[in-house]
Amino acid sequence: MSVTAARGFRAAGVAAGLKSTGARDVALVVSDGPLDVAAAVFTSNRVQAAPVQWSRQAVADGRARAVILNSGGANACTGPEGFADSHRTAEHVADALELSAQDVLVCSTGLIGVRLPMDSLLAGADAARAALADTEAAGLEAAQAIMTTDTVHKTAATTLPSGAVVGGMAKGAGMLAPQLATMLVVITTDAVVDAATADAALRGATATTFDRVDSDACMSTNDTVILLASGASGIEVGPEELAEGVREVSATLARALVADAEGASHDVHVVVTSATSEDAALAVAREIARANLVKAAIFGNDPNWGRIVAAAGCVPEAVAPFDPARLAVRVNGVQVCRDGGVGEDRSLVDMTPRETLIEVDLGAGDASGDIWTNDLTHDYVEENSAYSS
Amino acid sequence: MSVTAARGFRAAGVAAGLKSTGARDVALVVSDGPLDVAAAVFTSNRVQAAPVQWSRQAVADGRARAVILNSGGANACTGPEGFADSHRTAEHVADALELSAQDVLVCSTGLIGVRLPMDSLLAGADAARAALADTEAAGLEAAQAIMTTDTVHKTAATTLPSGAVVGGMAKGAGMLAPQLATMLVVITTDAVVDAATADAALRGATATTFDRVDSDACMSTNDTVILLASGASGIEVGPEELAEGVREVSATLARALVADAEGASHDVHVVVTSATSEDAALAVAREIARANLVKAAIFGNDPNWGRIVAAAGCVPEAVAPFDPARLAVRVNGVQVCRDGGVGEDRSLVDMTPRETLIEVDLGAGDASGDIWTNDLTHDYVEENSAYSS
Repeated sequence: MSVTAARGFRAAGVAAGLKSTGARDVALVVSDGPLDVAAAVFTSNRVQAAPVQWSRQAVADGRARAVILNSGGANACTGPEGFADSHRTAEHVADALELSAQDVLVCSTGLIGVRLPMDSLLAGADAARAALADTEAAGLEAAQAIMTTDTVHKTAATTLPSGAVVGGMAKGAGMLAPQLATMLVVITTDAVVDAATADAALRGATATTFDRVDSDACMSTNDTVILLASGASGIEVGPEELAEGVREVSATLARALVADAEGASHDVHVVVTSATSEDAALAVAREIARANLVKAAIFGNDPNWGRIVAAAGCVPEAVAPFDPARLAVRVNGVQVCRDGGVGEDRSLVDMTPRETLIEVDLGAGDASGDIWTNDLTHDYVEENSAYSS
Repeated sequence: MSVTAARGFRAAGVAAGLKSTGARDVALVVSDGPLDVAAAVFTSNRVQAAPVQWSRQAVADGRARAVILNSGGANACTGPEGFADSHRTAEHVADALELSAQDVLVCSTGLIGVRLPMDSLLAGADAARAALADTEAAGLEAAQAIMTTDTVHKTAATTLPSGAVVGGMAKGAGMLAPQLATMLVVITTDAVVDAATADAALRGATATTFDRVDSDACMSTNDTVILLASGASGIEVGPEELAEGVREVSATLARALVADAEGASHDVHVVVTSATSEDAALAVAREIARANLVKAAIFGNDPNWGRIVAAAGCVPEAVAPFDPARLAVRVNGVQVCRDGGVGEDRSLVDMTPRETLIEVDLGAGDASGDIWTNDLTHDYVEENSAYSS
């Protein structure tokens, strides 16, 4: 049920003193091969943390053997010195594992603008290497070590029809409280695949899972999703089977991020149908998912469809063609808006479940798209106003 | 100090029972000429309230004599019946004032998706007509009648060098709590100007004042800014002088909206300099102003510059070219970020004043731009989660 579910992987999670709480804060995931296939997707923020800059060039050849991850510091906006820290971390781990530094990817999460305590981090890397194991417990400890404000560790695994396995771990205190150093994901598989197939599977999976979770429109400087393939099962897996396995694990982990949004009291699924294109549907869904007035209303158990319609109206017509007079909105199954106007009585809507379903019919085409988000709560404000103090 | 400061205008504000509190809720502003010049700017939301649809076509000829405004209901998403209600309101007021319905503009503010109680509204319009006066008190009562969650009425006036006067009133509970039916503004002048000059002055003024207030990125279905010119001073005013007068009154009213954001504890001025163009500067300023993590940090008196830099990094390079490694950020005068990395100690920043100044230097060009916003607070969440319940 974690990165060690797939054969050919060892992992560890240790406490190195980066977190003031004494909790685990350094994780290491190692592929023992025989393959060293790797793919990765990174944040599109132009301000990229040092570990993202390092890992992007290190994985460019489609190969990696290890990932060293730390919580307790994002190593973002730390200048050339911060990049040197990430480079040095990779070299340190590589030396210990008898690898090239280019085969070691680095991930960090925590506060921006603070240098990492390198002595503690490198000592933690050594301790993690010493603790490496292919057990389920070791995989869980790695997942624990990357937690920040997460209340639970997030892991997933699936066995493909061919018998190959895909496992994974993720961190992210929901996407509602991403703290700008939000989402780190490591997915492993023992399938025999090449780098191009791994890359295609990972990009396809993230586009329909992690990319569709959007709680507060704040894009991280550190987001990283990594796929490592060890080939240890000896089972050759086709592109479609791998894509489906990676997608399934990604979907499970993405849903776990939404469910653990600490500040949140509702998980909100925005589904837009009858759009002229998937992009148009996603643009409308994203605008609704990002509207603070919609999110605050959901916190108040208020099916305020006027705010949903108004958010949809903010999307330019060139992006999502539709006639506002044909809009229909269902909240938790009740059609509160019909033909752009008043529908069923909003008092019929039961807003008490944690999961809120918002369905918007644009009446313009046959395409659809969905986004997951959370509500805007007092706890969100509290958590994010007190983070660095 | 209100719409009656300019000669040739009468106004009134009465209680018609649209608000459950019994407060004033219907306002009327009438130009007695000799001119009937008018210009207006409306929300760009594709979901447009019935009064916006009515007023847009009514003012298309550059002429209007009266504005009837109500709080207690936005008349948005109310279908053909809602439009008929706005039309009927204009006709009712026109009959009483012996005008054409096309010379009467209509504004509404309040909850979306609810029909207006027309009997109460029309009776209120009659009462307002009976109470019309050119006194300062009448102008203030009109400003009071358009308040929703505003804690104070907002008025302004200035005398131009030529002796002509520009006055105005606005409503909006800050822009932080726009309730989607946010901003109504009526500006009056006794200057002798033509419709094209009035239109240019109003568009120029809104572009650099009201359009630069952005508290939560939620665009209203009802936003309307109207300029009426009576010509009653007999003073011919050139385009530049009128533009400056309208801009000054607009700036005063826009700043008053920010200052009265009920949920807010800080007014935040985001100034972006050294951009390649004004549009680029505004795009970066707007992204920062809309970032919930930045806004929540300011609520917590936390000069969290990492979140500011990360928000800037979300703007696509095609929109705002700059090198993240050259970014500099000052918060209340302290340069907390230099060359994209750590600058002065953030503990040097005094965040206790209500006004917070965020200055971002992109190091890319000579253009600049600014946006006003507010912080994200518990009161914002409270107010917006309980609005329609």
